[in-house]
Amino acid sequence: MTDPQIQKISVSDPLPSWNESNVKKSILDFINKTTAKDSPDFIPADERIACFDNDGTLWAEQPLYFQLAFAIDRIKALAPLHPEWKTLQPFQDLLEGNIRAAFAEGEKAILQIMSVTHTGITTDDFEKIVKDWMATAVHPITGKHYYEMIYQPMTELLKYLRENDYKTFIVSGGGSDFMRSWVKQLFGIPKYMVVGSSGKVEYEILNGKPELFKLPEINFIDDKAGKPVGIHQFIGLRPVFSVGNSDGDYEMLQWTSTGDGPRFGMIIHHTDAVREWAYDRQSPVGHLEKALDDASKYGWQIMDMKNDWNKIFPDNFNIT
Amino acid sequence: MTDPQIQKISVSDPLPSWNESNVKKSILDFINKTTAKDSPDFIPADERIACFDNDGTLWAEQPLYFQLAFAIDRIKALAPLHPEWKTLQPFQDLLEGNIRAAFAEGEKAILQIMSVTHTGITTDDFEKIVKDWMATAVHPITGKHYYEMIYQPMTELLKYLRENDYKTFIVSGGGSDFMRSWVKQLFGIPKYMVVGSSGKVEYEILNGKPELFKLPEINFIDDKAGKPVGIHQFIGLRPVFSVGNSDGDYEMLQWTSTGDGPRFGMIIHHTDAVREWAYDRQSPVGHLEKALDDASKYGWQIMDMKNDWNKIFPDNFNIT
Repeated sequence: MTDPQIQKISVSDPLPSWNESNVKKSILDFINKTTAKDSPDFIPADERIACFDNDGTLWAEQPLYFQLAFAIDRIKALAPLHPEWKTLQPFQDLLEGNIRAAFAEGEKAILQIMSVTHTGITTDDFEKIVKDWMATAVHPITGKHYYEMIYQPMTELLKYLRENDYKTFIVSGGGSDFMRSWVKQLFGIPKYMVVGSSGKVEYEILNGKPELFKLPEINFIDDKAGKPVGIHQFIGLRPVFSVGNSDGDYEMLQWTSTGDGPRFGMIIHHTDAVREWAYDRQSPVGHLEKALDDASKYGWQIMDMKNDWNKIFPDNFNIT
Repeated sequence: MTDPQIQKISVSDPLPSWNESNVKKSILDFINKTTAKDSPDFIPADERIACFDNDGTLWAEQPLYFQLAFAIDRIKALAPLHPEWKTLQPFQDLLEGNIRAAFAEGEKAILQIMSVTHTGITTDDFEKIVKDWMATAVHPITGKHYYEMIYQPMTELLKYLRENDYKTFIVSGGGSDFMRSWVKQLFGIPKYMVVGSSGKVEYEILNGKPELFKLPEINFIDDKAGKPVGIHQFIGLRPVFSVGNSDGDYEMLQWTSTGDGPRFGMIIHHTDAVREWAYDRQSPVGHLEKALDDASKYGWQIMDMKNDWNKIFPDNFNIT
C-alpha cells in the first residue's frame, strides 16, 4: 500500500523530471521568494519576465540546428524544380548528403540556403510548410520526430513559471516564423511571446487579396548582443529570469543578471553523451565557453544534464 | 425605489459610455458570437487578437500628436544646453512657439526633432523622462493632463474584450518606447503588447554596467502598409478585430477584414467639435479619407463620436 504522505509529495512536485539538487532548489527558491507577497524579494506579476533560448535550451540542437534540417529537407523537396542545383554549391553538397562540406562554405552558403527555403513565399504558405514538416520529419540519429526532442524538464519549468504568473518568452537566434509554427503545441507559448531572427516582410495585394510576402532580406538577427536588443524591441521589459546554453546567450544572461533586485540566470550544460549529447567548448553548434567561464561571476546556475535531469525527452508526446 | 430589473441591466452593461446604437450592438454581437462555444462563429481564445491604433483611437490627437507635444516640451527643457537652437531651424520656430512653421519644414524637421529628443540616451533614462512628462504636462487647449484625454468608451471596450479572452494590442505609428512608458496605467496593456515605430537600439557596457542606447537611426515605421507587417513581425497572428481612425490604419483594417471567418473592423470618426474635435478628410493629423470611402466595401463600422458616445474622457482618472 502506498504511503499517502509520499504520494502527496510526489504529486505536488512541479518539476518531477528534475533530480533533487542545488539547481532544482535554486529554481524553486527563486520562484517562491519572488511570488510570496510578504517576501522582500517579491516581484509584481507584470515584471515577471522569463526568457528562454530555444535550440539546446528547450529542445535538442545536435548534430545541427533543427531549422537547418528543415532547410535541407526543403531543398531536397524543391530540387526537382531546380535542376541547376545538381552542379551549384552549396546545393550540390546538400543534395549529395555532404552537409558538413555545404556549411563549411560559411555564412554565404547559409544565407543562400535560407533564401531559397525561407523566402519568396507568403507567410501563410511558409507556416503550412513548416507545420507539415514538423508533423512528419524525423531526426537522423534518434529516429524521433523533432517535436519529441523537446526537453521534458524544461516544459515542466515553463508550466510552473506560468502557474506563478511568470510570462515565458522564447528569445532565440532561430527564425520567428519557423518557431511560431509550433511554439504553442510544443511549449504552450503564444506566437506573440516569441522573439527570434527574421527577414523582412512586405504587404501586397495580389488579385485583390492581401498577402504578406517573405523577402530575401534580413530584418533582425536575435543572437549575442542582439538578444537584449530584441528583448527591448519586442518585449520592452528587462527579464528577471533567463536560461540559455551557449555563448549566443551570454548578453541575454548578462542583461538579466545585472538588473536591480532578484535575478535568476541558468545555463543548460550538455553533459549526457548517452541520453543526449555532451558538448561545450569545442562544439560549433551550441558553442559554450565564455558563458561557462563567467557563470560564477554573474551567479548563473549551471544545470548538468546528466546529473540534474532524470528524464530528458517526454514520453508519448504528440504534436496534435 | 429603484426597479431591481433595471438596476441589474444597468450594472451589467459592459460598455456604459456607448449609446445604444447599431455600432454598440455590432460590437456586442461580434464578441458574443465569437466566444459562445456552440456558435458557428466561435474563435478559439488563442486566436482572439484585437489591434488598436492609439492616436485618435484610444486617446485624442489634436491639435498635434501628443508625442510631438512631448518632443516640443523636451526641446524647451533642453534649450539651455543648446544656445545654438536660438537661430537654428526647426528649433528656433519651436522655441518661439511657431509650431506650425516648424513642422511645415516637413519630414526632415520631424526627424531632427525626434533625434534630439528621443535618442542619445539609455532606454531606462528615456522611460523616466516620458513618465515625468506624462505625470505633469497638460494639454494646451483642454488644460487636462494628457493621460486624462484617453477615451473612456475605448477603455471599456478594451476591458470587455479582455474579459472575453481577447488579447488587446496597440498597433500605432507612435514610438514603442514612448507608449510603453504608460500603456499599462492608461489602458491595462502590458508593454509586450505594444507594436509601434522604433529607432535602433545598441547594447553596450559602460563602466561595467550593461545599457541599451537609443540610436538616431530608424528601425521600423509602424504606419500604413507597415501596420500589417508590424503585426506579423511582433504578434505573428492575423487580427480578427481592429480599430483605427485614419488612413494610416487602412491596411491594418484591410488585413483584419479580409481573413477567413468572422472579422470586425471599426473606424473612430471624430464628429464632435464641442466635446472633442471634428475632422476627417481635410485634417493633416488623423487624415481620414480612403478608409471612409471603402468602409462599406470592407464592412467596417463607423463609430460616430458625437452620437455613439455619451462620454468621451474619463472622470477623475489618475495615472498613479
